[in-house]
Amino acid sequence: MTEPPPQLIVGVLGGMGPAATIDFMDKLLQATGAEREQDNLRLLVDCNPHVPDRNHPIADGPQPGPVLADMASGLQKQGAQIIVMPCNTAHKFTADIRAALTIPFISLIDETAAMLARRYPQAKRVGLLATTTCIEDRLYQDAFAKQGVDSVTLPPADAARLMALIYQIKRGDRSDAARAEMKALADQLTAAGAQVVVAACTEVPLVLAAHDIAAPLLDTTQVLIERTLAYARDGELILTAA
Amino acid sequence: MTEPPPQLIVGVLGGMGPAATIDFMDKLLQATGAEREQDNLRLLVDCNPHVPDRNHPIADGPQPGPVLADMASGLQKQGAQIIVMPCNTAHKFTADIRAALTIPFISLIDETAAMLARRYPQAKRVGLLATTTCIEDRLYQDAFAKQGVDSVTLPPADAARLMALIYQIKRGDRSDAARAEMKALADQLTAAGAQVVVAACTEVPLVLAAHDIAAPLLDTTQVLIERTLAYARDGELILTAA
Repeated sequence: MTEPPPQLIVGVLGGMGPAATIDFMDKLLQATGAEREQDNLRLLVDCNPHVPDRNHPIADGPQPGPVLADMASGLQKQGAQIIVMPCNTAHKFTADIRAALTIPFISLIDETAAMLARRYPQAKRVGLLATTTCIEDRLYQDAFAKQGVDSVTLPPADAARLMALIYQIKRGDRSDAARAEMKALADQLTAAGAQVVVAACTEVPLVLAAHDIAAPLLDTTQVLIERTLAYARDGELILTAA
Repeated sequence: MTEPPPQLIVGVLGGMGPAATIDFMDKLLQATGAEREQDNLRLLVDCNPHVPDRNHPIADGPQPGPVLADMASGLQKQGAQIIVMPCNTAHKFTADIRAALTIPFISLIDETAAMLARRYPQAKRVGLLATTTCIEDRLYQDAFAKQGVDSVTLPPADAARLMALIYQIKRGDRSDAARAEMKALADQLTAAGAQVVVAACTEVPLVLAAHDIAAPLLDTTQVLIERTLAYARDGELILTAA
Protein backbone atom coordinates (compact mmCIF):
# COMPACT_ATOMS: atom_id res chain seq x y z
CA MET A 1 0.00 0.00 0.00
CA THR A 2 1.36 3.42 -0.96
CA GLU A 3 1.02 6.42 1.29
CA PRO A 4 -2.08 8.54 0.67
CA PRO A 5 -1.28 11.83 -1.14
CA PRO A 6 -0.91 14.92 1.06
CA GLN A 7 -4.39 16.27 1.69
CA LEU A 8 -5.97 18.71 4.09
CA ILE A 9 -8.42 17.40 6.68
CA VAL A 10 -11.75 19.11 6.02
CA GLY A 11 -13.97 20.23 8.88
CA VAL A 12 -17.65 20.45 8.00
CA LEU A 13 -20.09 22.66 9.88
CA GLY A 14 -23.18 20.61 9.17
CA GLY A 15 -26.69 19.67 10.17
CA MET A 16 -28.34 22.74 8.63
CA GLY A 17 -30.18 20.65 7.62
CA PRO A 18 -28.80 17.15 8.02
CA ALA A 19 -30.06 16.04 4.59
CA ALA A 20 -28.12 18.87 2.92
CA THR A 21 -24.96 17.79 4.80
CA ILE A 22 -25.42 14.17 3.71
CA ASP A 23 -26.07 15.35 0.14
CA PHE A 24 -22.79 17.32 0.24
CA MET A 25 -20.84 14.30 1.57
CA ASP A 26 -22.40 11.96 -0.98
CA LYS A 27 -21.79 14.22 -3.99
CA LEU A 28 -18.26 15.03 -2.77
CA LEU A 29 -17.51 11.31 -2.61
CA GLN A 30 -18.84 10.84 -6.15
CA ALA A 31 -16.95 13.89 -7.44
CA THR A 32 -13.70 12.62 -5.90
CA GLY A 33 -14.02 9.45 -7.96
CA ALA A 34 -11.24 7.75 -5.99
CA GLU A 35 -10.13 4.35 -7.15
CA ARG A 36 -9.16 3.33 -3.61
CA GLU A 37 -11.08 4.07 -0.40
CA GLN A 38 -7.87 5.58 1.04
CA ASP A 39 -7.70 8.24 -1.71
CA ASN A 40 -10.83 10.02 -0.47
CA LEU A 41 -10.68 13.12 1.71
CA ARG A 42 -10.91 12.80 5.47
CA LEU A 43 -13.90 14.78 6.75
CA LEU A 44 -14.58 15.79 10.34
CA VAL A 45 -18.29 16.52 10.35
CA ASP A 46 -20.23 18.19 13.11
CA CYS A 47 -23.74 17.38 11.92
CA ASN A 48 -25.59 19.52 14.44
CA PRO A 49 -29.31 19.98 13.81
CA HIS A 50 -29.55 21.81 17.14
CA VAL A 51 -27.99 25.01 15.79
CA PRO A 52 -30.69 27.63 16.52
CA ASP A 53 -32.86 28.21 13.46
CA ARG A 54 -31.10 30.68 11.16
CA ASN A 55 -34.47 31.85 9.84
CA HIS A 56 -36.19 32.38 13.19
CA PRO A 57 -33.58 33.74 15.61
CA ILE A 58 -35.22 34.61 18.89
CA ALA A 59 -34.00 37.91 20.28
CA ASP A 60 -33.35 36.67 23.81
CA GLY A 61 -32.85 32.97 22.96
CA PRO A 62 -29.70 31.12 21.90
CA GLN A 63 -28.11 32.67 18.80
CA PRO A 64 -26.60 30.69 15.93
CA GLY A 65 -23.33 32.66 15.82
CA PRO A 66 -21.76 31.52 19.11
CA VAL A 67 -22.94 27.91 18.51
CA LEU A 68 -21.30 27.87 15.08
CA ALA A 69 -18.13 29.42 16.53
CA ASP A 70 -17.94 26.65 19.17
CA MET A 71 -18.50 23.97 16.56
CA ALA A 72 -15.79 25.43 14.31
CA SER A 73 -13.34 25.68 17.17
CA GLY A 74 -14.09 22.05 18.13
CA LEU A 75 -13.41 20.88 14.58
CA GLN A 76 -10.08 22.73 14.50
CA LYS A 77 -9.05 21.22 17.85
CA GLN A 78 -9.93 17.78 16.49
CA GLY A 79 -7.54 18.30 13.58
CA ALA A 80 -9.43 20.05 10.78
CA GLN A 81 -7.19 22.15 8.53
CA ILE A 82 -9.88 24.00 6.58
CA ILE A 83 -13.56 24.52 7.39
CA VAL A 84 -16.53 24.49 5.03
CA MET A 85 -20.27 24.86 5.70
CA PRO A 86 -22.89 23.43 3.33
CA CYS A 87 -25.53 25.96 4.37
CA ASN A 88 -25.80 29.34 2.66
CA THR A 89 -27.99 31.18 5.18
CA ALA A 90 -25.66 30.40 8.09
CA HIS A 91 -22.94 32.36 6.26
CA LYS A 92 -24.59 35.35 7.90
CA PHE A 93 -22.41 34.28 10.86
CA THR A 94 -19.14 34.07 8.91
CA ALA A 95 -17.47 36.69 11.14
CA ASP A 96 -18.28 34.68 14.29
CA ILE A 97 -16.90 31.51 12.72
CA ARG A 98 -13.69 33.14 11.46
CA ALA A 99 -13.09 34.82 14.84
CA ALA A 100 -13.03 31.34 16.44
CA LEU A 101 -10.49 29.90 13.99
CA THR A 102 -6.84 30.17 13.05
CA ILE A 103 -7.41 27.97 9.98
CA PRO A 104 -9.23 29.11 6.81
CA PHE A 105 -13.02 29.11 6.65
CA ILE A 106 -14.08 28.81 3.01
CA SER A 107 -16.96 31.19 2.30
CA LEU A 108 -19.55 29.56 0.08
CA ILE A 109 -20.84 33.03 -0.80
CA ASP A 110 -17.44 34.30 -2.02
CA GLU A 111 -16.67 31.05 -3.84
CA THR A 112 -20.03 31.11 -5.61
CA ALA A 113 -19.53 34.73 -6.69
CA ALA A 114 -16.06 33.86 -8.01
CA MET A 115 -17.45 30.78 -9.79
CA LEU A 116 -20.19 32.87 -11.41
CA ALA A 117 -17.57 35.28 -12.77
CA ARG A 118 -15.45 32.40 -14.10
CA ARG A 119 -18.23 30.31 -15.56
CA TYR A 120 -20.73 32.93 -16.74
CA PRO A 121 -18.67 36.11 -17.33
CA GLN A 122 -21.42 37.54 -19.56
CA ALA A 123 -24.16 37.20 -16.94
CA LYS A 124 -25.48 40.58 -15.77
CA ARG A 125 -28.65 39.42 -13.96
CA VAL A 126 -28.87 36.27 -11.85
CA GLY A 127 -31.85 34.77 -10.02
CA LEU A 128 -31.64 33.71 -6.37
CA LEU A 129 -33.37 30.66 -4.93
CA ALA A 130 -32.54 31.44 -1.30
CA THR A 131 -34.10 31.70 2.14
CA THR A 132 -35.73 34.95 3.18
CA THR A 133 -32.94 35.53 5.73
CA CYS A 134 -30.30 35.05 3.06
CA ILE A 135 -32.12 37.55 0.84
CA GLU A 136 -32.88 40.09 3.58
CA ASP A 137 -29.25 40.06 4.71
CA ARG A 138 -28.17 40.55 1.08
CA LEU A 139 -25.52 37.81 1.37
CA TYR A 140 -25.51 37.14 -2.37
CA GLN A 141 -26.83 40.45 -3.69
CA ASP A 142 -23.87 42.36 -2.23
CA ALA A 143 -21.31 39.79 -3.37
CA PHE A 144 -22.67 39.81 -6.91
CA ALA A 145 -23.06 43.62 -6.98
CA LYS A 146 -19.30 43.98 -6.41
CA GLN A 147 -18.91 42.17 -9.73
CA GLY A 148 -21.48 44.35 -11.48
CA VAL A 149 -24.12 41.64 -11.44
CA ASP A 150 -27.73 42.33 -10.47
CA SER A 151 -29.78 39.88 -8.44
CA VAL A 152 -33.37 38.95 -9.20
CA THR A 153 -35.41 37.75 -6.23
CA LEU A 154 -38.93 36.38 -5.93
CA PRO A 155 -41.83 38.68 -4.99
CA PRO A 156 -42.92 38.31 -1.31
CA ALA A 157 -45.72 35.77 -1.83
CA ASP A 158 -43.46 33.49 -3.86
CA ALA A 159 -40.55 33.99 -1.48
CA ALA A 160 -42.89 32.72 1.25
CA ARG A 161 -43.80 29.72 -0.94
CA LEU A 162 -40.09 28.96 -1.43
CA MET A 163 -39.50 29.19 2.32
CA ALA A 164 -42.37 26.77 3.02
CA LEU A 165 -40.97 24.45 0.37
CA ILE A 166 -37.49 24.55 1.94
CA TYR A 167 -39.00 23.53 5.29
CA GLN A 168 -40.89 20.71 3.53
CA ILE A 169 -37.60 19.48 2.04
CA LYS A 170 -35.98 19.68 5.50
CA ARG A 171 -38.76 17.35 6.69
CA GLY A 172 -37.81 14.86 3.98
CA ASP A 173 -40.16 15.78 1.13
CA ARG A 174 -38.51 15.10 -2.22
CA SER A 175 -41.74 14.33 -4.03
CA ASP A 176 -42.57 15.13 -7.65
CA ALA A 177 -44.82 17.91 -6.36
CA ALA A 178 -41.90 19.48 -4.48
CA ARG A 179 -39.73 19.17 -7.59
CA ALA A 180 -42.40 20.77 -9.78
CA GLU A 181 -42.84 23.67 -7.38
CA MET A 182 -39.09 24.35 -7.19
CA LYS A 183 -38.86 24.25 -10.99
CA ALA A 184 -41.77 26.71 -11.27
CA LEU A 185 -40.04 29.12 -8.87
CA ALA A 186 -36.78 28.84 -10.83
CA ASP A 187 -38.60 29.48 -14.10
CA GLN A 188 -40.20 32.53 -12.58
CA LEU A 189 -36.75 34.00 -11.95
CA THR A 190 -35.74 33.48 -15.58
CA ALA A 191 -39.05 35.01 -16.72
CA ALA A 192 -38.04 38.05 -14.64
CA GLY A 193 -34.79 38.34 -16.56
CA ALA A 194 -32.33 36.07 -14.71
CA GLN A 195 -29.70 34.68 -17.10
CA VAL A 196 -28.43 32.18 -14.51
CA VAL A 197 -30.35 30.66 -11.58
CA VAL A 198 -28.34 30.26 -8.37
CA ALA A 199 -29.43 27.42 -6.07
CA ALA A 200 -28.37 29.54 -3.11
CA CYS A 201 -29.74 27.21 -0.44
CA THR A 202 -28.38 23.67 -0.02
CA GLU A 203 -31.91 22.26 0.25
CA VAL A 204 -32.66 23.41 -3.31
CA PRO A 205 -30.52 20.83 -5.18
CA LEU A 206 -32.22 18.06 -3.19
CA VAL A 207 -35.19 18.58 -5.55
CA LEU A 208 -33.74 20.56 -8.49
CA ALA A 209 -31.08 19.48 -10.98
CA ALA A 210 -29.49 21.43 -13.83
CA HIS A 211 -31.45 19.46 -16.43
CA ASP A 212 -34.75 20.44 -14.82
CA ILE A 213 -34.62 24.03 -16.04
CA ALA A 214 -33.77 25.77 -19.31
CA ALA A 215 -31.52 28.43 -17.77
CA PRO A 216 -28.04 27.51 -16.48
CA LEU A 217 -28.15 26.47 -12.80
CA LEU A 218 -25.29 27.43 -10.48
CA ASP A 219 -25.61 24.90 -7.67
CA THR A 220 -23.88 26.12 -4.50
CA THR A 221 -23.50 22.55 -3.19
CA GLN A 222 -21.53 21.69 -6.34
CA VAL A 223 -19.50 24.90 -5.99
CA LEU A 224 -18.54 23.90 -2.45
CA ILE A 225 -17.59 20.39 -3.60
CA GLU A 226 -15.39 21.67 -6.44
CA ARG A 227 -13.66 24.20 -4.22
CA THR A 228 -13.20 21.73 -1.35
CA LEU A 229 -11.47 19.33 -3.73
CA ALA A 230 -9.35 22.15 -5.21
CA TYR A 231 -8.15 23.36 -1.80
CA ALA A 232 -7.99 20.12 0.20
CA ARG A 233 -6.91 17.60 -2.41
CA ASP A 234 -5.33 19.46 -5.31
CA GLY A 235 -3.32 21.94 -3.26
CA GLU A 236 -4.82 25.07 -4.78
CA LEU A 237 -3.99 28.13 -2.70
CA ILE A 238 -6.84 29.57 -0.68
CA LEU A 239 -7.20 33.23 -1.60
CA THR A 240 -10.82 34.01 -0.80
CA ALA A 241 -10.70 33.14 2.90
CA ALA A 242 -10.15 36.24 5.02
CA MET B 1 -39.28 27.19 19.70
CA THR B 2 -39.25 24.54 22.42
CA GLU B 3 -36.01 23.12 23.76
CA PRO B 4 -34.85 19.96 21.98
CA PRO B 5 -35.43 16.79 24.04
CA PRO B 6 -32.43 15.50 26.02
CA GLN B 7 -30.34 13.42 23.65
CA LEU B 8 -26.85 12.02 23.63
CA ILE B 9 -24.32 13.35 21.13
CA VAL B 10 -23.28 10.43 18.95
CA GLY B 11 -19.67 10.03 17.80
CA VAL B 12 -19.29 8.07 14.57
CA LEU B 13 -16.08 6.27 13.65
CA GLY B 14 -16.55 6.41 9.89
CA GLY B 15 -15.00 6.33 6.48
CA MET B 16 -14.70 2.53 6.31
CA GLY B 17 -15.82 3.06 3.65
CA PRO B 18 -17.20 6.57 3.24
CA ALA B 19 -20.25 5.37 1.28
CA ALA B 20 -21.23 3.07 4.15
CA THR B 21 -20.92 5.98 6.59
CA ILE B 22 -23.09 8.20 4.40
CA ASP B 23 -25.60 5.34 4.02
CA PHE B 24 -25.73 5.04 7.84
CA MET B 25 -26.28 8.81 8.27
CA ASP B 26 -28.94 8.91 5.56
CA LYS B 27 -30.92 5.91 6.86
CA LEU B 28 -30.58 7.16 10.46
CA LEU B 29 -32.07 10.50 9.39
CA GLN B 30 -34.95 8.72 7.68
CA ALA B 31 -35.51 6.37 10.64
CA THR B 32 -35.59 9.32 13.03
CA GLY B 33 -38.50 10.78 11.08
CA ALA B 34 -38.23 14.10 12.90
CA GLU B 35 -40.85 16.70 12.18
CA ARG B 36 -38.42 19.54 12.89
CA GLU B 37 -34.76 19.71 11.88
CA GLN B 38 -33.87 20.38 15.53
CA ASP B 39 -35.33 17.03 16.66
CA ASN B 40 -32.65 15.03 14.85
CA LEU B 41 -29.62 13.62 16.66
CA ARG B 42 -26.36 15.54 16.67
CA LEU B 43 -23.61 13.45 15.10
CA LEU B 44 -19.88 14.06 15.32
CA VAL B 45 -18.50 12.09 12.40
CA ASP B 46 -14.87 11.31 11.74
CA CYS B 47 -15.18 10.09 8.18
CA ASN B 48 -11.61 8.87 7.80
CA PRO B 49 -10.90 6.80 4.69
CA HIS B 50 -7.20 6.81 5.65
CA VAL B 51 -7.66 4.20 8.38
CA PRO B 52 -5.25 1.44 7.31
CA ASP B 53 -7.07 -1.28 5.38
CA ARG B 54 -8.68 -3.66 7.85
CA ASN B 55 -8.43 -6.48 5.31
CA HIS B 56 -4.78 -6.00 4.37
CA PRO B 57 -2.93 -4.97 7.52
CA ILE B 58 0.78 -4.74 6.83
CA ALA B 59 2.87 -6.29 9.58
CA ASP B 60 5.32 -3.39 9.91
CA GLY B 61 3.03 -0.65 8.52
CA PRO B 62 0.50 1.52 10.34
CA GLN B 63 -2.11 -0.58 12.16
CA PRO B 64 -5.84 0.24 12.29
CA GLY B 65 -6.16 -0.18 16.09
CA PRO B 66 -4.17 2.87 17.23
CA VAL B 67 -5.68 5.03 14.46
CA LEU B 68 -9.21 4.08 15.54
CA ALA B 69 -8.30 4.69 19.19
CA ASP B 70 -7.06 8.21 18.33
CA MET B 71 -10.20 8.95 16.32
CA ALA B 72 -12.44 7.73 19.16
CA SER B 73 -10.56 9.78 21.72
CA GLY B 74 -10.84 12.85 19.47
CA LEU B 75 -14.61 12.41 19.17
CA GLN B 76 -14.97 12.12 22.94
CA LYS B 77 -12.90 15.28 23.47
CA GLN B 78 -15.10 17.06 20.95
CA GLY B 79 -18.20 16.18 22.99
CA ALA B 80 -19.44 12.78 21.89
CA GLN B 81 -21.30 10.87 24.62
CA ILE B 82 -21.51 7.48 22.91
CA ILE B 83 -19.51 6.07 20.02
CA VAL B 84 -20.71 3.87 17.16
CA MET B 85 -18.88 2.49 14.11
CA PRO B 86 -20.72 1.55 10.91
CA CYS B 87 -18.07 -0.99 9.87
CA ASN B 88 -18.24 -4.59 11.05
CA THR B 89 -14.69 -5.69 10.23
CA ALA B 90 -13.10 -2.84 12.20
CA HIS B 91 -14.79 -4.25 15.32
CA LYS B 92 -11.74 -6.50 15.42
CA PHE B 93 -10.18 -3.45 17.14
CA THR B 94 -12.95 -2.97 19.72
CA ALA B 95 -10.52 -3.41 22.62
CA ASP B 96 -8.24 -0.62 21.29
CA ILE B 97 -11.22 1.70 20.87
CA ARG B 98 -12.66 1.00 24.32
CA ALA B 99 -9.27 1.47 25.97
CA ALA B 100 -9.17 5.03 24.56
CA LEU B 101 -12.62 5.98 25.88
CA THR B 102 -14.43 6.69 29.12
CA ILE B 103 -17.79 6.80 27.28
CA PRO B 104 -19.60 3.73 25.90
CA PHE B 105 -18.62 2.24 22.58
CA ILE B 106 -21.63 0.38 21.14
CA SER B 107 -20.48 -2.92 19.65
CA LEU B 108 -22.27 -3.62 16.39
CA ILE B 109 -21.37 -7.30 16.80
CA ASP B 110 -22.98 -7.62 20.25
CA GLU B 111 -26.01 -5.58 19.23
CA THR B 112 -26.56 -7.71 16.14
CA ALA B 113 -26.30 -10.92 18.15
CA ALA B 114 -28.83 -9.54 20.65
CA MET B 115 -31.13 -8.44 17.83
CA LEU B 116 -30.96 -11.88 16.24
CA ALA B 117 -32.04 -13.47 19.53
CA ARG B 118 -34.90 -10.99 19.91
CA ARG B 119 -36.14 -11.03 16.35
CA TYR B 120 -35.45 -14.61 15.26
CA PRO B 121 -35.41 -16.67 18.48
CA GLN B 122 -36.00 -19.88 16.53
CA ALA B 123 -33.00 -19.41 14.23
CA LYS B 124 -30.33 -22.06 14.73
CA ARG B 125 -28.24 -21.48 11.59
CA VAL B 126 -27.48 -18.06 10.15
CA GLY B 127 -25.54 -17.12 7.01
CA LEU B 128 -22.81 -14.50 7.07
CA LEU B 129 -22.16 -12.03 4.27
CA ALA B 130 -18.92 -10.66 5.71
CA THR B 131 -15.34 -9.82 4.80
CA THR B 132 -12.72 -12.55 5.00
CA THR B 133 -11.09 -10.76 7.97
CA CYS B 134 -14.41 -10.63 9.80
CA ILE B 135 -14.88 -14.38 9.15
CA GLU B 136 -11.31 -15.41 9.95
CA ASP B 137 -11.39 -13.50 13.22
CA ARG B 138 -14.74 -15.19 14.04
CA LEU B 139 -16.28 -11.85 15.12
CA TYR B 140 -19.82 -13.07 14.44
CA GLN B 141 -19.35 -16.84 14.72
CA ASP B 142 -18.24 -16.58 18.35
CA ALA B 143 -20.97 -14.10 19.28
CA PHE B 144 -23.67 -16.30 17.76
CA ALA B 145 -22.19 -19.50 19.19
CA LYS B 146 -22.68 -18.11 22.71
CA GLN B 147 -26.40 -18.08 21.88
CA GLY B 148 -26.34 -21.61 20.47
CA VAL B 149 -26.53 -20.38 16.88
CA ASP B 150 -24.33 -21.85 14.13
CA SER B 151 -22.86 -19.70 11.38
CA VAL B 152 -22.81 -20.65 7.71
CA THR B 153 -20.04 -19.06 5.66
CA LEU B 154 -19.25 -19.14 1.95
CA PRO B 155 -16.70 -21.63 0.57
CA PRO B 156 -13.29 -20.02 -0.19
CA ALA B 157 -13.85 -19.29 -3.89
CA ASP B 158 -17.17 -17.55 -3.17
CA ALA B 159 -15.76 -15.76 -0.15
CA ALA B 160 -13.13 -14.33 -2.52
CA ARG B 161 -15.90 -13.30 -4.94
CA LEU B 162 -17.72 -11.53 -2.09
CA MET B 163 -14.53 -9.75 -1.09
CA ALA B 164 -13.94 -8.55 -4.67
CA LEU B 165 -17.57 -7.42 -4.79
CA ILE B 166 -17.18 -5.46 -1.53
CA TYR B 167 -14.17 -3.62 -3.01
CA GLN B 168 -16.22 -2.90 -6.16
CA ILE B 169 -18.96 -1.38 -3.99
CA LYS B 170 -16.34 0.67 -2.12
CA ARG B 171 -15.32 2.07 -5.54
CA GLY B 172 -18.92 3.15 -6.12
CA ASP B 173 -20.38 0.21 -8.05
CA ARG B 174 -24.08 -0.20 -7.24
CA SER B 175 -25.00 -1.63 -10.62
CA ASP B 176 -27.62 -4.27 -11.31
CA ALA B 177 -24.78 -6.75 -11.87
CA ALA B 178 -23.41 -6.03 -8.39
CA ARG B 179 -26.91 -6.43 -6.95
CA ALA B 180 -27.44 -9.73 -8.75
CA GLU B 181 -24.11 -11.09 -7.56
CA MET B 182 -24.81 -10.14 -3.93
CA LYS B 183 -28.25 -11.75 -4.15
CA ALA B 184 -26.71 -14.94 -5.57
CA LEU B 185 -24.21 -15.10 -2.69
CA ALA B 186 -27.01 -14.58 -0.16
CA ASP B 187 -29.12 -17.29 -1.78
CA GLN B 188 -26.15 -19.64 -1.61
CA LEU B 189 -26.07 -19.24 2.16
CA THR B 190 -29.75 -20.12 2.44
CA ALA B 191 -29.21 -23.10 0.13
CA ALA B 192 -26.53 -24.19 2.65
CA GLY B 193 -29.09 -24.12 5.45
CA ALA B 194 -29.03 -20.53 6.72
CA GLN B 195 -32.44 -19.54 8.15
CA VAL B 196 -31.47 -15.87 8.35
CA VAL B 197 -28.90 -13.98 6.26
CA VAL B 198 -26.82 -11.43 8.15
CA ALA B 199 -25.55 -8.46 6.10
CA ALA B 200 -22.45 -8.41 8.31
CA CYS B 201 -20.58 -5.81 6.29
CA THR B 202 -21.94 -2.27 5.87
CA GLU B 203 -21.18 -2.32 2.13
CA VAL B 204 -23.66 -5.20 1.66
CA PRO B 205 -26.90 -3.19 2.16
CA LEU B 206 -25.68 -0.68 -0.44
CA VAL B 207 -26.68 -3.32 -3.03
CA LEU B 208 -28.96 -5.72 -1.11
CA ALA B 209 -32.33 -5.01 0.48
CA ALA B 210 -34.59 -7.31 2.49
CA HIS B 211 -37.03 -7.67 -0.39
CA ASP B 212 -34.27 -8.94 -2.68
CA ILE B 213 -34.05 -12.34 -1.02
CA ALA B 214 -36.51 -14.95 0.21
CA ALA B 215 -34.83 -15.53 3.59
CA PRO B 216 -35.07 -12.89 6.34
CA LEU B 217 -32.19 -10.38 6.13
CA LEU B 218 -30.64 -9.02 9.31
CA ASP B 219 -29.02 -5.79 8.12
CA THR B 220 -26.30 -4.63 10.52
CA THR B 221 -26.59 -1.00 9.33
CA GLN B 222 -30.26 -1.06 10.34
CA VAL B 223 -29.36 -2.72 13.66
CA LEU B 224 -26.91 0.09 14.38
CA ILE B 225 -29.51 2.72 13.47
CA GLU B 226 -32.18 1.19 15.72
CA ARG B 227 -29.80 0.85 18.64
CA THR B 228 -28.33 4.34 18.17
CA LEU B 229 -31.84 5.81 18.35
CA ALA B 230 -32.72 3.66 21.37
CA TYR B 231 -29.63 4.72 23.32
CA ALA B 232 -29.13 8.31 22.16
CA ARG B 233 -32.68 9.51 21.66
CA ASP B 234 -35.01 7.26 23.65
CA GLY B 235 -32.86 6.97 26.76
CA GLU B 236 -32.59 3.18 26.75
CA LEU B 237 -29.86 2.02 29.11
CA ILE B 238 -26.71 0.73 27.49
CA LEU B 239 -26.05 -2.76 28.80
CA THR B 240 -23.95 -4.37 26.08
CA ALA B 241 -21.09 -1.87 26.13
CA ALA B 242 -18.22 -3.16 28.26
